[in-house]
Amino acid sequence: MGKTVEFLFDFGSPATYLAHKRIPEIAARTGAVFDYQPFLLGGVFKATGNASPISVPAKGRWMLGDLGRWARKHGTPFRMNPNFPINTLTLMRAAEALKGKPGFDRYVDAVFDAIWKDGENMNDEAVVAEVLYAAGLDGKAILEAAHSDEAKAKLKADTERAVERGVFGAPTFFIGDEMHFGQDRLDFVEDAIAA
Amino acid sequence: MGKTVEFLFDFGSPATYLAHKRIPEIAARTGAVFDYQPFLLGGVFKATGNASPISVPAKGRWMLGDLGRWARKHGTPFRMNPNFPINTLTLMRAAEALKGKPGFDRYVDAVFDAIWKDGENMNDEAVVAEVLYAAGLDGKAILEAAHSDEAKAKLKADTERAVERGVFGAPTFFIGDEMHFGQDRLDFVEDAIAA
Repeated sequence: MGKTVEFLFDFGSPATYLAHKRIPEIAARTGAVFDYQPFLLGGVFKATGNASPISVPAKGRWMLGDLGRWARKHGTPFRMNPNFPINTLTLMRAAEALKGKPGFDRYVDAVFDAIWKDGENMNDEAVVAEVLYAAGLDGKAILEAAHSDEAKAKLKADTERAVERGVFGAPTFFIGDEMHFGQDRLDFVEDAIAA
Repeated sequence: MGKTVEFLFDFGSPATYLAHKRIPEIAARTGAVFDYQPFLLGGVFKATGNASPISVPAKGRWMLGDLGRWARKHGTPFRMNPNFPINTLTLMRAAEALKGKPGFDRYVDAVFDAIWKDGENMNDEAVVAEVLYAAGLDGKAILEAAHSDEAKAKLKADTERAVERGVFGAPTFFIGDEMHFGQDRLDFVEDAIAA
């Protein structure tokens, strides 16, 4: 049984999508298990005083080119979503509702691809339902679960817990107490798995 | 004759120090010439709305561990300066005064090492003078040149020019018009040299 890497994700982060696409290959190479943990990046920004890179226009312009270079380096299909920034509140609540249940992995794959590969407008719940049905999931049931008090409370609690652990952005990885930030730190994640 | 990589630096950035220490090996491997260009990071922050990572405490804590991991990965002697953040205004003006003259490279090496290897308090001009004399440079003359109107005007102009070119942090690299940000992007810099 390999080590567990906690992968704290929010669908709204393109860097998190790039990491998500590299995880299967790293898991296969190292035997590590990646435990996907939803949190709300906007909530973490608010609590920590951090902000999206695009809040600095010059940084946003550089980031766009930089993400493209990372995508090409690893052969990851990627294009910037025309609706960026995305409000991921419902999408992340749905992830909480599905976590630990059948369909979670398929849901995560479908939402990441819809946003960062296919350019879908996932701010629109009708589009979300369509995307989920196309992935073989019950879109209506998932959206209902997303709007449940339980899913809302889970996302709030997981976001607060992330802040307590020192999270300030996405993606964030934990190997035990060791925290890594950024899709560009997957080499350090692999080092920590091997250590 | 290899390609030219413009290296925009401010001594106050620990990530820029880490890049500086890797440049000789990259220059030797690729034949590229690294053209060191002073600018004032604080001025760029002010003009772009960017801020030091340490302005977000959780990011600052992560960054400290992250810089240590990069230093160990490349065998770079490094410790966080106890006087961080450093006011580099005089140090950068001196770099402008020396640029293109004998002693520039030695000055750059001496100041980077004093801050990020030896933990010196380079906010204190007496310490700066001592460090420069120890490196075989005329500390008094260099500080006088730093206080000249010409050096002040050069640093101001170079900082404004950096902002115009899209710079928002340090270190920044240009290969022609292609801009890379961060010591963690030296692989992309090498790709651009090879392209």
